[in-house]
Amino acid sequence: MTAAATPDVPWVVGVDSGGSGLRVALAPAGGDGPPRTLTSREPVRTGPAGIDAGHLMQQLGPMARELIDGAGGGAVAAVAVGSAGMATLGGDLRERLPAALDGAFGTRRLALAADAVTAYAGALGQRPGAVVAAGTGLIALGTDLRSWRRADGWGHLLGDCGGGAWIGRAGLDAAMRAYDGRRGCSPALRARAEAVFDGPLNELPGKLYPRTDRPAVLASFAPEVARCAPHDPVAEGILREAARHIAEAAVAVCPSGTECEVALTGGLFKMGAPLVVPLEEELAAQLPAARVSVADGDPLDGAVVLARALAAGTLRLPHDGRMLHLP
Amino acid sequence: MTAAATPDVPWVVGVDSGGSGLRVALAPAGGDGPPRTLTSREPVRTGPAGIDAGHLMQQLGPMARELIDGAGGGAVAAVAVGSAGMATLGGDLRERLPAALDGAFGTRRLALAADAVTAYAGALGQRPGAVVAAGTGLIALGTDLRSWRRADGWGHLLGDCGGGAWIGRAGLDAAMRAYDGRRGCSPALRARAEAVFDGPLNELPGKLYPRTDRPAVLASFAPEVARCAPHDPVAEGILREAARHIAEAAVAVCPSGTECEVALTGGLFKMGAPLVVPLEEELAAQLPAARVSVADGDPLDGAVVLARALAAGTLRLPHDGRMLHLP
Repeated sequence: MTAAATPDVPWVVGVDSGGSGLRVALAPAGGDGPPRTLTSREPVRTGPAGIDAGHLMQQLGPMARELIDGAGGGAVAAVAVGSAGMATLGGDLRERLPAALDGAFGTRRLALAADAVTAYAGALGQRPGAVVAAGTGLIALGTDLRSWRRADGWGHLLGDCGGGAWIGRAGLDAAMRAYDGRRGCSPALRARAEAVFDGPLNELPGKLYPRTDRPAVLASFAPEVARCAPHDPVAEGILREAARHIAEAAVAVCPSGTECEVALTGGLFKMGAPLVVPLEEELAAQLPAARVSVADGDPLDGAVVLARALAAGTLRLPHDGRMLHLP
Repeated sequence: MTAAATPDVPWVVGVDSGGSGLRVALAPAGGDGPPRTLTSREPVRTGPAGIDAGHLMQQLGPMARELIDGAGGGAVAAVAVGSAGMATLGGDLRERLPAALDGAFGTRRLALAADAVTAYAGALGQRPGAVVAAGTGLIALGTDLRSWRRADGWGHLLGDCGGGAWIGRAGLDAAMRAYDGRRGCSPALRARAEAVFDGPLNELPGKLYPRTDRPAVLASFAPEVARCAPHDPVAEGILREAARHIAEAAVAVCPSGTECEVALTGGLFKMGAPLVVPLEEELAAQLPAARVSVADGDPLDGAVVLARALAAGTLRLPHDGRMLHLP
């Protein structure tokens, strides 16, 4: 059990809200021990006013209360909420969340962050540098602590170059080429696609296009590309091109003038060496001064970093009303 | 006015059914003059049994009757229907259309063709060769008159490499790269995208992803890529890569052993020299024995070719139950 907070050492609450649900973390404002966490599988609704502040509080209120009670009670000094779509869909949160938090926990200290910002803070804390956050999609975010720079994150039809859906789509393209005999084909990827999607590949369009989660379906094939890469030159080439795109996004956001710290975070990098080795090579070529690491902390850890800094008055990451907003 | 058919020289009916509606052509079975045509803007419905034969006949019956009456009457010797999705969604047509045509026109002579087959027949008639049909998507179809070979046509997430959506998407990727400062960017394409999509490019994802006609939206940007190509190396490079993919599809389906006739058909090639010149160069490199032409005839012309051959007993294109089916 982590140290309980006293009225002098209150709690902070970090929140990570996304397509797969809501995660809440409770941590001592002053400590650095692991937070207590709870997860809800119900994604916060998005309505005409954007991300629904009422629906968020319906879940966050009881979850945070349960965590606080489980830890022996205590006050809340600050809350940080990271969410996908915060910049464009955060209007209702900006407007209604401060009063709602005041009512529930007696604090109006709130940070509203894009999920890329919580990913950044989870990976690099409050140090300057660049973070590439990649799962189904891919976005790069960098800061010199004066302003944010963002690259890609435009979705599977306009970018997300080198992300999970991008890699999976390139792998399936190579599989289809093996099916119909075009150049650039990979018999190994064809065999894996037939196994994973359970049938001949002329049936794959009929299985993919009717679905509403097409980017996730594409991304589900990315690990197969990584699995084939050690013995299949087409798969290896796909991951090398992905690495080049990822490095390009990192270059675009790295603060200039100094040795840059580049952190890789998100589920995509769990595929390990087949992607990370060519990516380290690409970064060495495109950003020779960079120090590259795979991040330990995730966006929920980042929300806790933001909430602690807010509580302590030590927030150094730039707040600009879009990427990171203090209502 | 074309020559009226007599009971000895009856009519044939060609049909082209697709996402934008239904086109019907009436032509003398024996002649080669231009057909009379009618167009309906109502696409034939697809139901649980596939393309709805009843809905097709509801439109085709009156349209063909109007054409026949306008031409002075006469009998129908054969009907050919080309449709998108025929191979997978043609079950209801195969089952119910022969009896329906018999009731309406007194003929059971019917050819059901994939739209790629009517595109082929419209471009090359009944000669062996290869046809690339490209608009929003892209498919290549070839035959040695013994069997069909098909390449690509897998849709905007699995292929259609070099088609309209593919080119538009690559152009918008280069525009987004100019917006956020990544390598491979094109300021010219960024300017065109801001003009065409009416605003800064960080708003483009919010305009594109909610739509249901995303491939068409992407393809709408392809002409801008062609327009930029003469003075923008990134746009020029996109069209050169498109040309390489298109040539790869043609190579995969070209009948081997002889000098191959390759015809290009569909709206994509209306963009002219910026795409056609690099494509001719790619085909010269990948298929040195090919004779390349841009087709005169379209899929509706191809349906008339099939119907005439069926009426005359001179059908040479292979029928295999999928690409071309004679119920």
